[in-house]
Amino acid sequence: MLLKFRFLDFSTAFSPKVCTFFAPSKLLFRQLFEKESSTYTYLLADASHPDKPALVIDKTVDRDLSLVKELGLKLLYAINTHVHADHVVGTGLIKSKAPGVKSIISKASNAKADLFVEPGDKICLGDLFLDVRATPGHTLGCVTYATGDGHNQPQPRMAFIVDALLIHGCGRIDFQLYKSVHSQIFTLPKGTLVYPAHDYKGFSVSTVGEEMLYNPRLTKDEETFNNIMANLNFSYPKLIDVVVPANMFVVCKMSNPKLDDVFVKSRHQSVVILHRE
Amino acid sequence: MLLKFRFLDFSTAFSPKVCTFFAPSKLLFRQLFEKESSTYTYLLADASHPDKPALVIDKTVDRDLSLVKELGLKLLYAINTHVHADHVVGTGLIKSKAPGVKSIISKASNAKADLFVEPGDKICLGDLFLDVRATPGHTLGCVTYATGDGHNQPQPRMAFIVDALLIHGCGRIDFQLYKSVHSQIFTLPKGTLVYPAHDYKGFSVSTVGEEMLYNPRLTKDEETFNNIMANLNFSYPKLIDVVVPANMFVVCKMSNPKLDDVFVKSRHQSVVILHRE
Repeated sequence: MLLKFRFLDFSTAFSPKVCTFFAPSKLLFRQLFEKESSTYTYLLADASHPDKPALVIDKTVDRDLSLVKELGLKLLYAINTHVHADHVVGTGLIKSKAPGVKSIISKASNAKADLFVEPGDKICLGDLFLDVRATPGHTLGCVTYATGDGHNQPQPRMAFIVDALLIHGCGRIDFQLYKSVHSQIFTLPKGTLVYPAHDYKGFSVSTVGEEMLYNPRLTKDEETFNNIMANLNFSYPKLIDVVVPANMFVVCKMSNPKLDDVFVKSRHQSVVILHRE
Repeated sequence: MLLKFRFLDFSTAFSPKVCTFFAPSKLLFRQLFEKESSTYTYLLADASHPDKPALVIDKTVDRDLSLVKELGLKLLYAINTHVHADHVVGTGLIKSKAPGVKSIISKASNAKADLFVEPGDKICLGDLFLDVRATPGHTLGCVTYATGDGHNQPQPRMAFIVDALLIHGCGRIDFQLYKSVHSQIFTLPKGTLVYPAHDYKGFSVSTVGEEMLYNPRLTKDEETFNNIMANLNFSYPKLIDVVVPANMFVVCKMSNPKLDDVFVKSRHQSVVILHRE
């Protein structure tokens, strides 16, 4: 079997870090909250590199761009876990205010963006990287981003778990969610921190081990889980008819729409995509 | 000069940890949020010890007690940074539902509690400990709790910074605040994580270094700072006439009101207070 891997890479020189959270070697991490939609945004950066390359995950607002600027970070990517139906992501806002930023979403989402990711891809941020794991079920194109497993990567690992898996709960689903969570999230080390896209009870983080023990829905067998979810009668998302169209256009397709054919490699450019198969 | 130190200590045997956040060796840490009052509660535990001794800082609700139970922690202390004027702390609730828990507040607050702390005290939690730092200015009896500086203590350190210092801001003050922050918080290592009691903009954490650079008020000189604060015209806290009386009685004075005279030491009891001078 031929090796297939894809990296979104950014290479810069090294410089002393200013403020680092959690993984003393490199990772600057911030969790931000928006009360009206109970939405979390995540900011990650490799603070050990001179450019302090950074990315944001999901909904982003002016507040977050100001924080990026204050911390002296270079925002490279605005990444989405899926096409949201309950709030407008800020990717378009970011790109209007930080034109060099690339939007990222899964290829399976069928949304428009600068870059598309597939399961198995790694998004590199200096010497840090995020794994892309396919976790359809909340929407078809949902992905979970997990920090890498390896030397100098944050320990414990961290997973940004989409709208479907909530802390001690579960959002609305269509199908496949049970298998997605059990095969892609619950297979991570038990100490892996799980960070939700939303929380309505004031929780900020959980762990894989905790969710495997206490998640009231996902600890059931698959048939029971599906029956529970089928009978929950979720209301129609209030803003879906506005936000989904907005979120589908996560700003600007790449000029070469066939990413499989792309072989762009330069140590001086902000993006290196390497795809071999 | 004679040595004076006081420990609140809890000694238990060792056992493997279940879920650990941030300091792989021991610390389990959770930050919880309450939207209505924009208040943070903090849960800390030494997850390496068999009893998993834990404490909570400031406002605590049923949600937090359920979490303590789920995580298999043994809640020892409910500690307060000061007498709050804007919300009722949950210490009384905790003690009614977890009778063994001891309430802690600073001696300078003049509130009632099971245990009183003074500057220089250390609150021990298994092999972890919190330093008590006097930071009057928001109220007279305000203290800041900072994780210890030493082997096997969380790195970077963490400081729970009272109502006066907010992320990129500052709450209402009476006097002394500037000196308190500059002498007790801004002297901590720059990478120290600062966790606020409240946040209204969705921030969850900052660092000492970041606040020293970007806090719009506390980066001013003292005279300018005091002028700014004097002219802010804070509104009278809506619930102050209800909550302050409630919070002053943080449940049960110790049977011996003169703590200086107390010398209680037992390896089998849940509290060891050692005071020598």
